[in-house]
Amino acid sequence: MTYYGLHALQHRGQEASGIVTSEFLAEKQKWRFNAFKGNGLVADVFKDASILKDQLKGSSAIGHNRYSTTGSADNKFNIQPFVVNYKAGNLALGHNGNLTNFHTLRESLQSEGTIFQSTTDSEIILHLTARSKHEGQIHQLKEALDAVEGAYSLVILTDTSLIAARDPYGLRPLCLGRIETGSAKGPAYVVASETCAFDLVGATYVGEVEPGEILVIDQEGVQSGTLKSYHISKTPAEPHHCIFEYIYFSRPDSKIFGENVDKVRRKLGKLLAAESPVRPDSEDDRVVVISVPDSSNTATLGFVTEANKMGDDVRLEIGLIRSHYVGRTFIQPDQNSRELKVKTKFNTVKGVIKGRKVVIVDDSIVRGTTSKQLVKMIREAEPKEIHFRVTSPPIKFPCYYGMDFPSREELIANRCNSDVDKIAEELGVDSLAYLSMEKLLEAAPNGGRNYCTACFSGIYPVPIDRQLTKDANDT
Amino acid sequence: MTYYGLHALQHRGQEASGIVTSEFLAEKQKWRFNAFKGNGLVADVFKDASILKDQLKGSSAIGHNRYSTTGSADNKFNIQPFVVNYKAGNLALGHNGNLTNFHTLRESLQSEGTIFQSTTDSEIILHLTARSKHEGQIHQLKEALDAVEGAYSLVILTDTSLIAARDPYGLRPLCLGRIETGSAKGPAYVVASETCAFDLVGATYVGEVEPGEILVIDQEGVQSGTLKSYHISKTPAEPHHCIFEYIYFSRPDSKIFGENVDKVRRKLGKLLAAESPVRPDSEDDRVVVISVPDSSNTATLGFVTEANKMGDDVRLEIGLIRSHYVGRTFIQPDQNSRELKVKTKFNTVKGVIKGRKVVIVDDSIVRGTTSKQLVKMIREAEPKEIHFRVTSPPIKFPCYYGMDFPSREELIANRCNSDVDKIAEELGVDSLAYLSMEKLLEAAPNGGRNYCTACFSGIYPVPIDRQLTKDANDT
Amino acid sequence: MTYYGLHALQHRGQEASGIVTSEFLAEKQKWRFNAFKGNGLVADVFKDASILKDQLKGSSAIGHNRYSTTGSADNKFNIQPFVVNYKAGNLALGHNGNLTNFHTLRESLQSEGTIFQSTTDSEIILHLTARSKHEGQIHQLKEALDAVEGAYSLVILTDTSLIAARDPYGLRPLCLGRIETGSAKGPAYVVASETCAFDLVGATYVGEVEPGEILVIDQEGVQSGTLKSYHISKTPAEPHHCIFEYIYFSRPDSKIFGENVDKVRRKLGKLLAAESPVRPDSEDDRVVVISVPDSSNTATLGFVTEANKMGDDVRLEIGLIRSHYVGRTFIQPDQNSRELKVKTKFNTVKGVIKGRKVVIVDDSIVRGTTSKQLVKMIREAEPKEIHFRVTSPPIKFPCYYGMDFPSREELIANRCNSDVDKIAEELGVDSLAYLSMEKLLEAAPNGGRNYCTACFSGIYPVPIDRQLTKDANDT
Amino acid sequence: MTYYGLHALQHRGQEASGIVTSEFLAEKQKWRFNAFKGNGLVADVFKDASILKDQLKGSSAIGHNRYSTTGSADNKFNIQPFVVNYKAGNLALGHNGNLTNFHTLRESLQSEGTIFQSTTDSEIILHLTARSKHEGQIHQLKEALDAVEGAYSLVILTDTSLIAARDPYGLRPLCLGRIETGSAKGPAYVVASETCAFDLVGATYVGEVEPGEILVIDQEGVQSGTLKSYHISKTPAEPHHCIFEYIYFSRPDSKIFGENVDKVRRKLGKLLAAESPVRPDSEDDRVVVISVPDSSNTATLGFVTEANKMGDDVRLEIGLIRSHYVGRTFIQPDQNSRELKVKTKFNTVKGVIKGRKVVIVDDSIVRGTTSKQLVKMIREAEPKEIHFRVTSPPIKFPCYYGMDFPSREELIANRCNSDVDKIAEELGVDSLAYLSMEKLLEAAPNGGRNYCTACFSGIYPVPIDRQLTKDANDT
Repeated sequence: MTYYGLHALQHRGQEASGIVTSEFLAEKQKWRFNAFKGNGLVADVFKDASILKDQLKGSSAIGHNRYSTTGSADNKFNIQPFVVNYKAGNLALGHNGNLTNFHTLRESLQSEGTIFQSTTDSEIILHLTARSKHEGQIHQLKEALDAVEGAYSLVILTDTSLIAARDPYGLRPLCLGRIETGSAKGPAYVVASETCAFDLVGATYVGEVEPGEILVIDQEGVQSGTLKSYHISKTPAEPHHCIFEYIYFSRPDSKIFGENVDKVRRKLGKLLAAESPVRPDSEDDRVVVISVPDSSNTATLGFVTEANKMGDDVRLEIGLIRSHYVGRTFIQPDQNSRELKVKTKFNTVKGVIKGRKVVIVDDSIVRGTTSKQLVKMIREAEPKEIHFRVTSPPIKFPCYYGMDFPSREELIANRCNSDVDKIAEELGVDSLAYLSMEKLLEAAPNGGRNYCTACFSGIYPVPIDRQLTKDANDT
Repeated sequence: MTYYGLHALQHRGQEASGIVTSEFLAEKQKWRFNAFKGNGLVADVFKDASILKDQLKGSSAIGHNRYSTTGSADNKFNIQPFVVNYKAGNLALGHNGNLTNFHTLRESLQSEGTIFQSTTDSEIILHLTARSKHEGQIHQLKEALDAVEGAYSLVILTDTSLIAARDPYGLRPLCLGRIETGSAKGPAYVVASETCAFDLVGATYVGEVEPGEILVIDQEGVQSGTLKSYHISKTPAEPHHCIFEYIYFSRPDSKIFGENVDKVRRKLGKLLAAESPVRPDSEDDRVVVISVPDSSNTATLGFVTEANKMGDDVRLEIGLIRSHYVGRTFIQPDQNSRELKVKTKFNTVKGVIKGRKVVIVDDSIVRGTTSKQLVKMIREAEPKEIHFRVTSPPIKFPCYYGMDFPSREELIANRCNSDVDKIAEELGVDSLAYLSMEKLLEAAPNGGRNYCTACFSGIYPVPIDRQLTKDANDT
Repeated sequence: MTYYGLHALQHRGQEASGIVTSEFLAEKQKWRFNAFKGNGLVADVFKDASILKDQLKGSSAIGHNRYSTTGSADNKFNIQPFVVNYKAGNLALGHNGNLTNFHTLRESLQSEGTIFQSTTDSEIILHLTARSKHEGQIHQLKEALDAVEGAYSLVILTDTSLIAARDPYGLRPLCLGRIETGSAKGPAYVVASETCAFDLVGATYVGEVEPGEILVIDQEGVQSGTLKSYHISKTPAEPHHCIFEYIYFSRPDSKIFGENVDKVRRKLGKLLAAESPVRPDSEDDRVVVISVPDSSNTATLGFVTEANKMGDDVRLEIGLIRSHYVGRTFIQPDQNSRELKVKTKFNTVKGVIKGRKVVIVDDSIVRGTTSKQLVKMIREAEPKEIHFRVTSPPIKFPCYYGMDFPSREELIANRCNSDVDKIAEELGVDSLAYLSMEKLLEAAPNGGRNYCTACFSGIYPVPIDRQLTKDANDT
Repeated sequence: MTYYGLHALQHRGQEASGIVTSEFLAEKQKWRFNAFKGNGLVADVFKDASILKDQLKGSSAIGHNRYSTTGSADNKFNIQPFVVNYKAGNLALGHNGNLTNFHTLRESLQSEGTIFQSTTDSEIILHLTARSKHEGQIHQLKEALDAVEGAYSLVILTDTSLIAARDPYGLRPLCLGRIETGSAKGPAYVVASETCAFDLVGATYVGEVEPGEILVIDQEGVQSGTLKSYHISKTPAEPHHCIFEYIYFSRPDSKIFGENVDKVRRKLGKLLAAESPVRPDSEDDRVVVISVPDSSNTATLGFVTEANKMGDDVRLEIGLIRSHYVGRTFIQPDQNSRELKVKTKFNTVKGVIKGRKVVIVDDSIVRGTTSKQLVKMIREAEPKEIHFRVTSPPIKFPCYYGMDFPSREELIANRCNSDVDKIAEELGVDSLAYLSMEKLLEAAPNGGRNYCTACFSGIYPVPIDRQLTKDANDT
């Protein structure tokens, strides 16, 4: 089940994957933790069925897909879930997010004689738990989580329980599902970043793991159908969910932060069409709207619907074909590699573009390099004009809570001093429009309240150490 | 360049891949053929850049993606291109299609003492060429092709030339492209099954390799810009192109048989909407049209456009999300494996389906097993009704020209005795409609003349040996 | 150089192998530690030259071949050298031997919140070093070594130095070599368990790393030709070298504990011949003496020389052929596997055995299973009689200092209650004789003083925790 | 059983290994041939037990270890046994030896349209068999063998029989063994190059496959205990066995050409001691005799025995230690690689060499490069003198019958114009002596008649095409 869940969540991390199970050895009357981890996609790491059957036996399991934000991607010690043995037994941890005070905590722990195996921020949680003087693993873990700051959605495995925990701001999603087992012991529980994992394994969505919640599923919990809930001490009143999850990161078939992603995404497209329409030049003319597949498909549908509703004769066309086989690492030639990389992923359908006024709808622009190559490709198909529409505001600030955005200098919006005309010129388009911050918040559920918009606004809800870099701990 | 071409054509075969190059060894003053082949996708077979750089040096190359129609998929000797050395030098061959008289030819060759290394039909062409008493490799090859029957689009490498050849009926596509090198030697030429390969490598479409043509690109040809053309003896007046290439097999961004695939495919959708519309139940109602991504996306657009033009208020929605990571082999659990296999590939977007009258547009139904699972998944999202529309007629006959359709018994249209209501019942839909043969031919270029429609009609343009089975040569 | 050194010492551990290098990154002005480790033999772990050239750059290096005495053999976290980063910089460690108080120390460290990555005893040294409050890595290490007990020959790499350390009893060998570099900076220094590693890399033997010594080779040391030496606090006056190194474990071409191994081994054979001779039955008869190759070859030569000197007409013959290709893992059939395993390693030369009174000379008998199979094989070659002679006393006690002997119950000498006749019967020989303890000590250098003979005598120089088992830390 | 047989014969070829089995598929009522082949040693090629259990099922099998004499070593198509399917069924072939007229036969077959898959001489036998007009596989094979010339010991598998065949001169060994199965069907039969393979699998030596014999073991044969024997047409009266098999190639525990190898080898040493003794300089002096392990061990014993019998006080010492782990490919540094290669294989035991008059006994000298390095190493151990004794005459001519000797120019005896003093000088020894041809023949069974001594004498029993080179067919 964990394997299929990781597969459903493959889009959240493609660098590495791992599963840890807890198995009760009846003859020794103790628990053994089994782990299998490797670099690459889920299907590549677990390519032999024997891994699941023979090497990952057990009654509970956690898994993790790695998308590195702290700690280098090619260090195999950085692959999660981490598994350790400490005074209170076995402990395994999978972490989504990014801790903002890990630098200070790591230095403090090292000065007291702690040895680190990985260069990730996540390992700190294990050491803090192991060093806690409290009795009981939950209380040890709570002490650790009271000390760390930043974004974290955690899955933790102990000898006798499965624990889910989420930072006080609820920056990253984490939801709880239930599987009816038909057993007298009651239902089984699963937790995952997005509900699309529940669909694949046949689980029903129960609700969110609350911001600041430490949710414990143990043998007793499973039997009685009740779960134990603890809370991190400094949980504030207001959450700050990452709004970029709705814009791009989550799958459209998922429900996160209590709302369907595809619904929000369609609304983003509608509001963008209203805010920055592209109209036919004449009655005979027809505007062709093209999505950058697959991440912008839903928003593009919203854009076209709204445009037609407003009376503009625009037509959705499939102008870009995305290869089914991307995701794999391709060999790059020495020259023109950026261009070829985009070309191995996308190709244009010339017939629908030629001679047309074309609108490209994309969800966001980060560095701008891919967009630039896409525009170049589309230009070769000889459209009359190219208009670029983005269903989010310009990204101008780095994310310290779990998105691997590049440095400020590399963000195209910064490089062009937030001058949209200059960005349009660099991309080579006839017009460019971003969705306004106001409309972005209008599209988001709950009236746009309780979101983190730091990458657009620079307003960081959790204090961050500006010296944070991805390779801070790498030598 | 061959590597990227194979990548662009990955959809035509995922079982195995190979590249052969011809390299002139100056110190020995002779040509060496280098080959690298393996099971799996292009990116997996050629995962190390050193393979291309160090092991596949040379001035010309051919490549092949395997999709087995004769010879078992797991026999490594069956991976193409084949490379042999014979009296006239080196020879490598890549074959798309299926020979219909290979059984007779193989028996005849074996009785004369020929040893076969593979269990494919393609190997026969090599033996016939090697045994020809003619002088000159082109004439030897021509003798071989005059003897074989069936479907073949071939790329052949000899010490001094690159040869493209196509069967007299032009059953499978094969097109010629040109790359301006800027060199005084003139342009370089490339051949590929579909033009999408040209887009990726920067080649311009020149035209079709004609049915019955043997096209020779040699050093001289490249220098002068002229190509030498030969013809297979028994070339008939009329070609018979595989119409299923337009319906499903080719990529929508390709031009084959002289026409853009996406244009034909959109027309299929339009004609289907006109022939078998699905109307809202009331003014307040709205029909939701869903594509089975990605192969039906273009036809679905046509369907929606035509329906709205006819005044029906239908709306295109993204109701099925296809995983980016399919194509890899997933570990299958012992039970429910068919269902899980479909679930790892597709998931529903519940919000757009619930309570709606839903139309699913798919390109074809072969066994019906995937369609059945899809319908089951969509049903779980609680639509009001499900209407299934197929942009081709029922598939009732096996293909002996290069499509790996199952036996007649496994085709759902046969199992249900061509009774559409019975098929609808088996799939679990409220209504089902296939495109009529008449409309299919109307959508196809050139007035629907010159196509092979055997899988729908049972009319086979080339005589076939009914005992043909995929594993005829396997022991 | 480390790679070749590991190769020369392959006989000391065949489970896993690893190398760690320290590389100064000029652009970052800091040291990076590079590691490559894997299961299997040296030549298999480092099978690509690129590993040494590209992944193991640096100016200093340590390596380790694993032969597990604590921590399971198949846990990849147990492969040494260990590499960690702590407050004072990088630290890598390779350990030969076995700590006797690791159980107590591990529990104590765990109770204070330390997390263990491996299940070996060796990791404790790293944690103790990291937790030391002393300034300076040498003093931190010294504090750690003052706390541990048992057998340890260590190689340690820090950012700026290479450290060799040996337990106060000098239980395992460790020697120092010098390589003249011809550079103005002076010679380079190497340390290794046995001098045979020096021969392969062209180093000259300087002397022993003394029991209780911590020898520091740093940049300065290399330049000036002087080494810094520190001592472990509780070093006793008398060392206790493992006498079994002379009997079996070390290579005959090595010098250890200050003496050539082959010289001691030849003497063992001579004393055994004198103590337990096998004489011809008549003047016409001739006794054939056979070595169990290759470990007993030298002792067998001594046996034959002494026997002939005493006037017995005995002849050395090659009666057992050892396969060159052992060491690799062979596939074992389900039945008769023990017998086949011995047969894949040895075969008899029937002509020299048939009809003869045969003496087999072996270095030791542990479980007795291999000896039994050997005797069975030799018996099939139809000798007149078989006499088994062992160049060491019966092994009756487990080793806690680095030899992986089985439990007492599995030792044949214990199973047979030290009854030599009973052992002879079990092995199926006509007579059996072990070397006496008295003669063993006579053969050893320095009058047989200062040795650990625990496996024969049960007298353990360092207190041991009797609950020690190899998998004490494995879950 | 085949797997273990290949292991026992590993010394005859280390480049590649393969096994082919014939399995009767009851449900299809036909035979399937299963093959598994790969580069490397037997234990590396068949490293997973599942290969033997799952992929190599069947009732009969043949195997082959490759040592390339024709066809490049790194061409995977050259790995044997070859498996083909032809008009009469399946056919697999393993060949030891070298055909001398393959060049002419290959050209002739190619001109008739035959395609070759490998660049070996062995493949010719398959084509000739497949092209035979005879009825019955035995007669087809006989026609093929009547056409080829040179050295061949063959194992052949057909659907219903196992065939062993040997060239008319019996150049390479091939022997027949029997295994009592206890079944009513009678014994099982095995064939192998050397009897040491029989010892490992528990077979009894029956006798030689006769020169020119085609021995057929079929179902009937197995049942009745009788074997069918056919003969190659042009079998001469006198065989010509390769005398180098006795000197070096075969294992000392094997019986070949009807005699124990170790017996011949000991005699070679005795005759050499008598012919070219090395005497102590004085009464106090003692000559130390050292073997180059392991191939010269037996001859060295003979040398020492004879020398002492003659009254010279010489003593056998183990002066060279051979690593157990050779055979694996080691990474070679860029410089001094030849020297290091020898050092990774051998090390000296300094104590027994220092100050002594040392005799090194080796079986043969080919290029002289290894001998030179050995002498250099021994010289560094400071002997008084080094005397080199070789138990065979100088190798001056290439072998065209299955030994991969280098070109004449590379043979040290040729480079030095057969001047022994000059060779001694090049090797750096105080004296050098080869065994005379006369004494070599005296040591060989049957009075030295019926041997091929071409590498020493230049007298080739089978006409050879002087243009033969190993890579004649490689492009």
